[in-house]
Amino acid sequence: MTEFRKIAIIGLGLIASSICLSLRQKDPAIQIVGYDNDKEVRKRAKRIGLCEIESNIEKAVNDCNLIILCVPVGQMYPVIQKLKNFIEPGTIITDVGSVKLSVIKELEAHTEDAKGKFVPSHPIAGTEKSGPDAGYAGLFDGRWCILTPTKKTNKKALKSVEIFWRFLGMQTKIMTPEHHDLVLAVTSHAPHLIAYTMVGVVDDLETVTKSEIINYSAAGFRDFTRIAASDPVMWRDIFLNNQDAHLEVLGRFTEELFSLQRAIRKKDGDYLLRYFERTRSIRKGIVAAGQDTGIPNFGRD
Amino acid sequence: MTEFRKIAIIGLGLIASSICLSLRQKDPAIQIVGYDNDKEVRKRAKRIGLCEIESNIEKAVNDCNLIILCVPVGQMYPVIQKLKNFIEPGTIITDVGSVKLSVIKELEAHTEDAKGKFVPSHPIAGTEKSGPDAGYAGLFDGRWCILTPTKKTNKKALKSVEIFWRFLGMQTKIMTPEHHDLVLAVTSHAPHLIAYTMVGVVDDLETVTKSEIINYSAAGFRDFTRIAASDPVMWRDIFLNNQDAHLEVLGRFTEELFSLQRAIRKKDGDYLLRYFERTRSIRKGIVAAGQDTGIPNFGRD
Repeated sequence: MTEFRKIAIIGLGLIASSICLSLRQKDPAIQIVGYDNDKEVRKRAKRIGLCEIESNIEKAVNDCNLIILCVPVGQMYPVIQKLKNFIEPGTIITDVGSVKLSVIKELEAHTEDAKGKFVPSHPIAGTEKSGPDAGYAGLFDGRWCILTPTKKTNKKALKSVEIFWRFLGMQTKIMTPEHHDLVLAVTSHAPHLIAYTMVGVVDDLETVTKSEIINYSAAGFRDFTRIAASDPVMWRDIFLNNQDAHLEVLGRFTEELFSLQRAIRKKDGDYLLRYFERTRSIRKGIVAAGQDTGIPNFGRD
Repeated sequence: MTEFRKIAIIGLGLIASSICLSLRQKDPAIQIVGYDNDKEVRKRAKRIGLCEIESNIEKAVNDCNLIILCVPVGQMYPVIQKLKNFIEPGTIITDVGSVKLSVIKELEAHTEDAKGKFVPSHPIAGTEKSGPDAGYAGLFDGRWCILTPTKKTNKKALKSVEIFWRFLGMQTKIMTPEHHDLVLAVTSHAPHLIAYTMVGVVDDLETVTKSEIINYSAAGFRDFTRIAASDPVMWRDIFLNNQDAHLEVLGRFTEELFSLQRAIRKKDGDYLLRYFERTRSIRKGIVAAGQDTGIPNFGRD
């Protein structure tokens, strides 16, 4: 159960639409009001009946207990500027941003001024699709939500937001924003940048045709294209807002890649074999923890 | 239909077992005899009834019309050394190696000496699993098989092998071995090396725990672990045998990665956005060509 009876959602993409669909399944009595800056998105969300839609952000947050900011990380600041005079004292505000330090910096002071209670959170769930049509009720099932309270975070509000994400089917974990940003740089941001890079390299090749790339992609490349089909604006904002952690992880990545490149050049088969042998155990752990399917090729073929 | 009535398969891993299961579905009258260097693998293949199993390579190829070499690329030379005195004149030999130039160099002269007819081929299909239990009948359905004849390749034998792979449900394409090795470096080998590298980087981190990696892997990283769970010996051999193409593609990859790293450092959001926007179209092409599912997250969640 969640105590929130009226929830405002700002930004109507994949996460927002999944929250709507999941909440509707779990407790249809909860009132959800949605707002998006983009008129077309509002229209679409209204047509598919996602939730109540307001074309005015002030009205959207009127009288609600919880505001969830589901906009790209780079939009958090503009949104809170528009919103801060309309937050009613005591309202709990949370966000779903993939970067926490920069978002906290932009949101915490303003929500405090407005006497709102800000709880930084990050539900780790998503697909390569985006927009109000991309959501589905089961997106959060069994996935993890990380909460990153600061010294200023209201303890009771933290608990309420934690219970909210659990109500949606998530497991929760509390850590510092600094540590969150490093962990996500490794498990999410660096893999995305690398996938974008690999797809970009292929897109640029003159010696291999597009139809060859497409036809023979089942040999590994197609997996990279799924990740590299993710929302460009969302990812631009993530990379602009977690610079230190990204540069640290990418530095290590190139160091390792060079060591493997050197082994290829020197025909050092033992080095390659040792490297390739130790990576299977991590896969096993992920499957055992229920964070991926163990069926070959993700069961897609 | 295929003209081959008795087929010998050397090396009983994922591809070999999938050939057996697929052939059995399509024409149970075809006789299949399997051999593997590893006694345990032979035992396992026999227990699961994959095909007739011979513990002697000479007997395995006795009186057959087609020999398919399904060993890692690095084993092609030792296998042909063991085999060459037992190949009957006129027998067609093909292989399934992911690298063609080096395999042709090792196999063509020897099969010629034995008056066998060698047709280099590469069925592009697989999963992250390996061994005789990993195969399934549908592995080849709709996938592509590349044939890379040389000036010495017998035209009739080429046609027969092409028909064979089509019989298993594949589409076929003929190209030069040089071009094949470049195309595969891009669509398969480089993505695998990059995935192995990323998983290795994570495995080495001291600041992030293994359980954190595992729990939060759904954000992108888990996709890399699937690829990096592929057979280590097979991949070592691929990297040792397609050096020039790999170093070329990896050179381009690091160049691109550095350009994105620089954009992150300089906070050049426009560069990042432009880069991330152009990669979606390749994904669309792959899904439209039936080479991947369009369902979010490969439909696995």
